Amino acid sequence: MASDWFEFLKKDFVQGFPAFCGFEVTHADHGVFETCLKVQDKHRQQDGFVHAGVISTMADHTAGYAAYTTVTRKSRILTIEFKINFFKPATSPLLICRSKVINNGKKIKVVESEVFSASDGTEKLVSKAMLTMTAVPAENIQAVS
Amino acid sequence: MASDWFEFLKKDFVQGFPAFCGFEVTHADHGVFETCLKVQDKHRQQDGFVHAGVISTMADHTAGYAAYTTVTRKSRILTIEFKINFFKPATSPLLICRSKVINNGKKIKVVESEVFSASDGTEKLVSKAMLTMTAVPAENIQAVS
Amino acid sequence: MASDWFEFLKKDFVQGFPAFCGFEVTHADHGVFETCLKVQDKHRQQDGFVHAGVISTMADHTAGYAAYTTVTRKSRILTIEFKINFFKPATSPLLICRSKVINNGKKIKVVESEVFSASDGTEKLVSKAMLTMTAVPAENIQAVS
Amino acid sequence: MASDWFEFLKKDFVQGFPAFCGFEVTHADHGVFETCLKVQDKHRQQDGFVHAGVISTMADHTAGYAAYTTVTRKSRILTIEFKINFFKPATSPLLICRSKVINNGKKIKVVESEVFSASDGTEKLVSKAMLTMTAVPAENIQAVS
Repeated sequence: MASDWFEFLKKDFVQGFPAFCGFEVTHADHGVFETCLKVQDKHRQQDGFVHAGVISTMADHTAGYAAYTTVTRKSRILTIEFKINFFKPATSPLLICRSKVINNGKKIKVVESEVFSASDGTEKLVSKAMLTMTAVPAENIQAVS
Repeated sequence: MASDWFEFLKKDFVQGFPAFCGFEVTHADHGVFETCLKVQDKHRQQDGFVHAGVISTMADHTAGYAAYTTVTRKSRILTIEFKINFFKPATSPLLICRSKVINNGKKIKVVESEVFSASDGTEKLVSKAMLTMTAVPAENIQAVS
Repeated sequence: MASDWFEFLKKDFVQGFPAFCGFEVTHADHGVFETCLKVQDKHRQQDGFVHAGVISTMADHTAGYAAYTTVTRKSRILTIEFKINFFKPATSPLLICRSKVINNGKKIKVVESEVFSASDGTEKLVSKAMLTMTAVPAENIQAVS
Repeated sequence: MASDWFEFLKKDFVQGFPAFCGFEVTHADHGVFETCLKVQDKHRQQDGFVHAGVISTMADHTAGYAAYTTVTRKSRILTIEFKINFFKPATSPLLICRSKVINNGKKIKVVESEVFSASDGTEKLVSKAMLTMTAVPAENIQAVS
């Protein structure tokens, strides 16, 4: 059942570095994934803005799980590369990331992630990324290239 | 004195999210910066490799400080965008990042970061990034674009 | 008048390399620009597909003029960098490019271009680009960085 | 013989769009490729500089053939994506592009291209690109993703 797979991925998302950062899952469906982060001081850079690394991690990990929703347990998703633009500093207490698969090839999946800085019900687009991911057989996870 | 500035930047580097991640500075000079990370479980993703977000954060932050070495206290550095490729999974206990300014414009600085997975004295290039950064007057830090 | 400016840009678009390639303008409005290309053999690569360079040129030049629609004659637009993904080979007789400014900063403008391969009224998204452009004073056109 | 393969690729390079643009090959070896272009008015943009599309096409096509030097006739090379930065306007009468494979995976090859504006024996680095390419079996050339 696809919905079982989405529920599994919602839990699987929160482990290792993403768990350490504090990302939470808010939505999952075929080809889409949404997460959020309650911003704390540990997420900031030297000028008090959310660090580009936090935003990049969120954009990458959420995109990876958007790609996971399009495959089965037999596949693993690895990031080949991504590009991310930072539009304005993120200063609000909440970050929201929405990722969407925009080209769902069998092996190569291209995903977009939009990151919003949210406050009092308003959202500001602070960053956008385009990511190239590859689906590899789970038993062959070392063979990235 | 340039060397005072480099010493200041070595300390300034470790705060907020990069401190939380555990990055350490090993070298700084005009247009170059080098950092390392002792890999722990909290840095990993679902397959046990170092998370792409850790590598991206290291590539971005080290590049930012490479750019800082080319300006004075009157300027702040902000990331406009970057692109990063992941060549192979990082599985070793140590990550090393070396960043270099490759085009030192007055306002726009292009920096490259190479990330190595190191073990027993051997280094393997696992990731490379190209980053576009902007130097803004310190008193005008909000005006990113 | 904005509409005069858009009409001027529609003509200004077709000169130099873009004229040599054969691009035509189909639409211009604030923050958006649309162009097309009737594909000929001279646009192909070694396997018979439209060359990635043709698609890149179209994505870049159309994006540049989308950015131009947001400024006045006092500014010139220059490309700082772009990233482009190729989803599938373009094999149809017509290419269409639609560009849109997605973050309209005063100096830094981020634009997206989508390129479609069209045939018999159907369009297939074959490529997408994200571009970072800068608006510089027309009298200072050499000062790119 | 590898040298036969390199000689074949030097000729194969100049066809379709790259031939139309006027690129010439100056060097080929395992993992590297070098080309040049005598700049004419048809290569320029609205401000008189070499068009970003010309530089992008040169960076992409030269990188593709650098990747070709690492495979055999049984494989075709396709561009998955690339990112390119423009450092300064190219105004000299000659462009030189040097491409190098920096990660030679079996299926995924990452290549760098540097483009120089040359005049009177001096070269100025005007652009740098990082490209992700894929080697596909020649008999299966349509299956890009």
